[in-house]
Amino acid sequence: MTPRGKFITVEGTEGVGKTTNLEYIKSWLQRNKIDFIATREPGGTPLAEQLRDLLLQPRNDETVAENAELLMVFAARAQHLNQVIKPALESGTWVLCDRFTDATYAYQGGGRCMDQATIAILENLVQGDLRPDAVILLDVSVQIGLARARGRGELDRFEQEDVAFFERVRAAYRSRADGNSSYHVVDAGQELDRVQQQLAIVLEQLGKRWLP
Amino acid sequence: MTPRGKFITVEGTEGVGKTTNLEYIKSWLQRNKIDFIATREPGGTPLAEQLRDLLLQPRNDETVAENAELLMVFAARAQHLNQVIKPALESGTWVLCDRFTDATYAYQGGGRCMDQATIAILENLVQGDLRPDAVILLDVSVQIGLARARGRGELDRFEQEDVAFFERVRAAYRSRADGNSSYHVVDAGQELDRVQQQLAIVLEQLGKRWLP
Repeated sequence: MTPRGKFITVEGTEGVGKTTNLEYIKSWLQRNKIDFIATREPGGTPLAEQLRDLLLQPRNDETVAENAELLMVFAARAQHLNQVIKPALESGTWVLCDRFTDATYAYQGGGRCMDQATIAILENLVQGDLRPDAVILLDVSVQIGLARARGRGELDRFEQEDVAFFERVRAAYRSRADGNSSYHVVDAGQELDRVQQQLAIVLEQLGKRWLP
Repeated sequence: MTPRGKFITVEGTEGVGKTTNLEYIKSWLQRNKIDFIATREPGGTPLAEQLRDLLLQPRNDETVAENAELLMVFAARAQHLNQVIKPALESGTWVLCDRFTDATYAYQGGGRCMDQATIAILENLVQGDLRPDAVILLDVSVQIGLARARGRGELDRFEQEDVAFFERVRAAYRSRADGNSSYHVVDAGQELDRVQQQLAIVLEQLGKRWLP
């Protein structure tokens, strides 16, 4: 029987360097000849990407209700899990995902101050007992992160939030990682080569645990 | 203090004549000089209408996961409640809504055989204790209903379901109405003038209860 694939998620606020560091993780997976897919949330299927568009587009016509946003995030996740993530893991393929449910605890829970218990209800409803095997949290001060992100052009509906919002998002991410052995916090405020040295150590640990 | 508006929903499977009968109810409200809005689900706000489009469009690219569908329905509902229904009711305006949560119990619960308890969790999460003051269920045999609906041109993702699906939807609707005094079942399989005679009796009852 093929062993189940590993599920690795990469998390962080705006401007932590997710794209670059995801590329670094992908090359590590390739070097180790691991069969994997790289995907993202919200998104990862045609319907889930359409939901992503609805979530991210700034709206002049109405305010998005917090619980509508939360349910859309989990609707996209349900579709992504059903169509992409679960079939891959079950067939032995590893899944590298740019954001997952920790982002919901951070953005909707921390940022929007929504009840964590409500998020947990939806998490259980949509995921059952499926959780990432490893969460790599790229952590950077909000000041540095936003300066990087806002150099990138037009802001989406989340990027338009204020500094206090992102401070809450960061705090929620850090508090989830705190004392939890599935989480690996990388200081993404350093120079890129130092970040990747730290990332290499994390990947080596995961490799020791999971690779033959 | 303005008394809270009344919340009336109209439910039924395909081809029960909702459009015509909604018009009949609207004229009754107008004749009684009741301040009301007419709206629909899924939909009723720009975002919720976008979610409606995603829910109804037939897809060749992927199968919509049942729990993704359910969460999209409730996301649209959360937005509709927050932006339209609750503010109206609170300001004393009556709300006449073409389908609401009974449709979720009927289509996702009955039709798709999803767990009623899961629907109830989402209902409580999104609605708190808000429920319709009256549900008018237009009931017709699946055979007659589908013959009417399928004469109308292109079929949406739900209309493409088979007869057994709609039998389950109808049974779920009827079972929710059974013995519940907020529900008013109208036999919509009769000639239109007979249907509207029955509807007039229902509206007269509601008027006696609610109008000064």
